[in-house]
Amino acid sequence: MTYCISIKVNDGLVFLADTRTNAGVDNVSKAKKLFTWTLEDRALMMMTAGNLGITQAVISELNEQLVRQDPNDQTLASVESIFYAAQLVGDVMRDVQARYGPGLSARGVDSSASIILGGQRRGGSLRLFNIYPEGNFIEATEDTPYFQIGENKYGKPIIDRVITSETELQDAIICALLSMDSTIRSNLTVGMPLDLAVLRPDTFAFEQHRRIDSDDDGYRLFSEAWSQQLRNAFAVMRGLNV
Amino acid sequence: MTYCISIKVNDGLVFLADTRTNAGVDNVSKAKKLFTWTLEDRALMMMTAGNLGITQAVISELNEQLVRQDPNDQTLASVESIFYAAQLVGDVMRDVQARYGPGLSARGVDSSASIILGGQRRGGSLRLFNIYPEGNFIEATEDTPYFQIGENKYGKPIIDRVITSETELQDAIICALLSMDSTIRSNLTVGMPLDLAVLRPDTFAFEQHRRIDSDDDGYRLFSEAWSQQLRNAFAVMRGLNV
Repeated sequence: MTYCISIKVNDGLVFLADTRTNAGVDNVSKAKKLFTWTLEDRALMMMTAGNLGITQAVISELNEQLVRQDPNDQTLASVESIFYAAQLVGDVMRDVQARYGPGLSARGVDSSASIILGGQRRGGSLRLFNIYPEGNFIEATEDTPYFQIGENKYGKPIIDRVITSETELQDAIICALLSMDSTIRSNLTVGMPLDLAVLRPDTFAFEQHRRIDSDDDGYRLFSEAWSQQLRNAFAVMRGLNV
Repeated sequence: MTYCISIKVNDGLVFLADTRTNAGVDNVSKAKKLFTWTLEDRALMMMTAGNLGITQAVISELNEQLVRQDPNDQTLASVESIFYAAQLVGDVMRDVQARYGPGLSARGVDSSASIILGGQRRGGSLRLFNIYPEGNFIEATEDTPYFQIGENKYGKPIIDRVITSETELQDAIICALLSMDSTIRSNLTVGMPLDLAVLRPDTFAFEQHRRIDSDDDGYRLFSEAWSQQLRNAFAVMRGLNV
């Protein structure tokens, strides 16, 4: 499995993905699931979950379109807005599903895949979309300013308690990392290293785009600090009568 | 759905269940999922998840056996140990599945159900079992002294961080309630009121067996206190660099 969490607050977009992939429990490896593009007038990022062959085919086709520069192609660089980028990603997803889905399903293999897309084009606003295996998609709103794909349940409670559109960007980053930390502790199919990307409005360049390795001292201290804080919180709760 | 959490520590057994049941999102109601029996030389408790028709049939048949007192029947009162009680519950589950499973599955309805069984017979030790829809079962061990059924993922991180066999009974109760609180906040299909039962070793009577309603002041304060503690913990994390 996978865990990817995206949060859209007024101050920007946070994307955080793990990198573990497995085809059965005896075939576990690492695969990048967070991808960014800084193009002339726009910055885009995507995270993928589900069948790795499917999601890699989608990302590769989107990149091939950029390379081949066929004037008949719509590409991530040419579409008019992030909404049309989501439509393009959904169209490529449908093509890839049409090509491989029936064969996979004949062998009983699940071809499901989802993609989170976020970004901004000059003149537009920051937008965040969740694209389904069928190519259709939904957009994050003020009411629910985040999307999760993959193993989403373990890390949902902390998001539900903390995140609103008004949350500061740095707090959204912290919250995404805590949500990931809980998921990694409770589910073996989600694992380090992590990929983090952060985009502020009207900058069109990533404020952060980095890999956090399992030997990263900052992350280790952060994770230990959260464990300690939870133990402290629990110690307070012991004193209550219920 | 449902969320039931059972914890077995050296000091006793904790069972906590929600009471929400739904057949589709437009048919939501309340149903008891925690059942206790105090019989001559033994105390037993069960929690159920899955198809409500199936689990109610299992519980009813177990109760009918106690009433009918057929000397040919094994019953919860007559079996030699809690292990054989688990076997009996599994056998009844298999009979019920054989009766209704094919009809349900012909209509595309899931007949899956699971039951957690705990208890002690005089002369034996406290034991905890997880019984599957096929009637087979596993027992909790020192390594993993808890079972969850239903919507288990939201409330797993806090259990993973706190619970070992050495955890004090009161702490196990608090931890079960926190695990439930996170699940209720993140999943609409799990809801108040809650049923809680607590059994200490060699007592053969329930130290607690009570319903916690949504207007229970103690629980409301407890839930608010945990939110506040988590906010405090989060505030500390904001000060860290990662």
